[in-house]
Amino acid sequence: MKLYVIGLGPGNPDTLTSQAKKALQACGTIVGYTVYVDLIRPHFPHKEWISTPMRQEVDRCRAAIEAALSGKDVAVVCSGDAGVYGMAGLILELLESYPAEQVCRLETQVIPGITAACGGAAVLGAPLMHDFAVISLSDLLTPWEQIAQRLALAAQGDFVICLYNPASKKRADYLQKACDIVLQYQPGETVCGLVRHIGREGESARILSLSALRDTPADMFTTVYIGNRQTRKIHQWMVTPRGYQIPGRKEEAH
Amino acid sequence: MKLYVIGLGPGNPDTLTSQAKKALQACGTIVGYTVYVDLIRPHFPHKEWISTPMRQEVDRCRAAIEAALSGKDVAVVCSGDAGVYGMAGLILELLESYPAEQVCRLETQVIPGITAACGGAAVLGAPLMHDFAVISLSDLLTPWEQIAQRLALAAQGDFVICLYNPASKKRADYLQKACDIVLQYQPGETVCGLVRHIGREGESARILSLSALRDTPADMFTTVYIGNRQTRKIHQWMVTPRGYQIPGRKEEAH
Repeated sequence: MKLYVIGLGPGNPDTLTSQAKKALQACGTIVGYTVYVDLIRPHFPHKEWISTPMRQEVDRCRAAIEAALSGKDVAVVCSGDAGVYGMAGLILELLESYPAEQVCRLETQVIPGITAACGGAAVLGAPLMHDFAVISLSDLLTPWEQIAQRLALAAQGDFVICLYNPASKKRADYLQKACDIVLQYQPGETVCGLVRHIGREGESARILSLSALRDTPADMFTTVYIGNRQTRKIHQWMVTPRGYQIPGRKEEAH
Repeated sequence: MKLYVIGLGPGNPDTLTSQAKKALQACGTIVGYTVYVDLIRPHFPHKEWISTPMRQEVDRCRAAIEAALSGKDVAVVCSGDAGVYGMAGLILELLESYPAEQVCRLETQVIPGITAACGGAAVLGAPLMHDFAVISLSDLLTPWEQIAQRLALAAQGDFVICLYNPASKKRADYLQKACDIVLQYQPGETVCGLVRHIGREGESARILSLSALRDTPADMFTTVYIGNRQTRKIHQWMVTPRGYQIPGRKEEAH
């Protein structure tokens, strides 16, 4: 009667927490999107696996709840953190239609993982050291007007901005559109970064200006960072200073 | 010559990733703020420990760099994620004053951890399922006017807002001031949450309205979540729907 929603981190089993690993070991049934299930399947033998393709999230989560209610210990897995554009919310929303006494019998727990914002930031250096906004450019579930407004307000507030789902085949120009909005408030030289396949085979990263980012292709495997006005390139890293006074350093004019 | 900056997660050693654990095992010297060092010291015997109190971050990080340059393998530890209000940025900033050839010889790596935003969200349910802003209310290194502006813009954009450092002894009324700003844009019934001592002994959580949050005391061990206009309480959880269509559910008017 366990129902765990588990964030796997960026994809490499090394980025799992001990808590997540123990929860996966404790569950006989593991439910997830085909691609993520395939990433961890070799590390957890002798399990029942239920996987469904993308866009079948509601069916997948309902199958997990029904399996748990039937008496199984079930883990729903997501890449990154289950609570950031993951399955935690949908599982809890679906539980709303079950009576409280049934829900109480389930031992439901969300187990956090390293979200792409944090995993990719570590690859680039330290871009998220100051206040930041996380925005998904996917308009499958959110109207583009709302995404555009959030981009504009985050840029006005000089937040560091981390973009999830920056582009897809159908949305090839969304990152360009997003950069054009930010460019209304932030200079073209703003230091930005891209990380692709965080923590997986073929990981790559790049630091570039906002103007250059505008003309750079991205895909669903890319996480994008737009710096604030203090963000700098230091050696090979993208760094947003927190504001510590460093004795002996020449202070730049702000 | 290793220099790792490691996020420990919320505090319980169970929230460490395997990657972070291996890195800690590989290092002979561990550097950190006294409180965090004491949390993990029992789990990593036979190490050299360098700890300094709060507000001595620059000295602490410089000591870590000097130890690594002298040939030691050094881990700088932070609670949560090293890249979110942690030490990753300061370490990289301090490396700026060293010549590139010296920096190249150091094997510098940031190892991510579960940041409080994600750790606390998992305790509450799923408050961060949609676009969110992370804002620290500490004005030690950031002018209050900038914090206030960011709060206003994030509220205008209907971002879920996660607040770090919501109050301290000297800043007893900062959470109240922050809520007053958000209340200019969001209704008093907005669903909010508080988590104290995430993942540690004495962990506690509470879900309450924005109006009630305004009059609730908080401290440096508290992480605060202000929902967006879709955030709801479902059973005992705080949930921000992502927007999935759930067949058979009565659709609410927006």
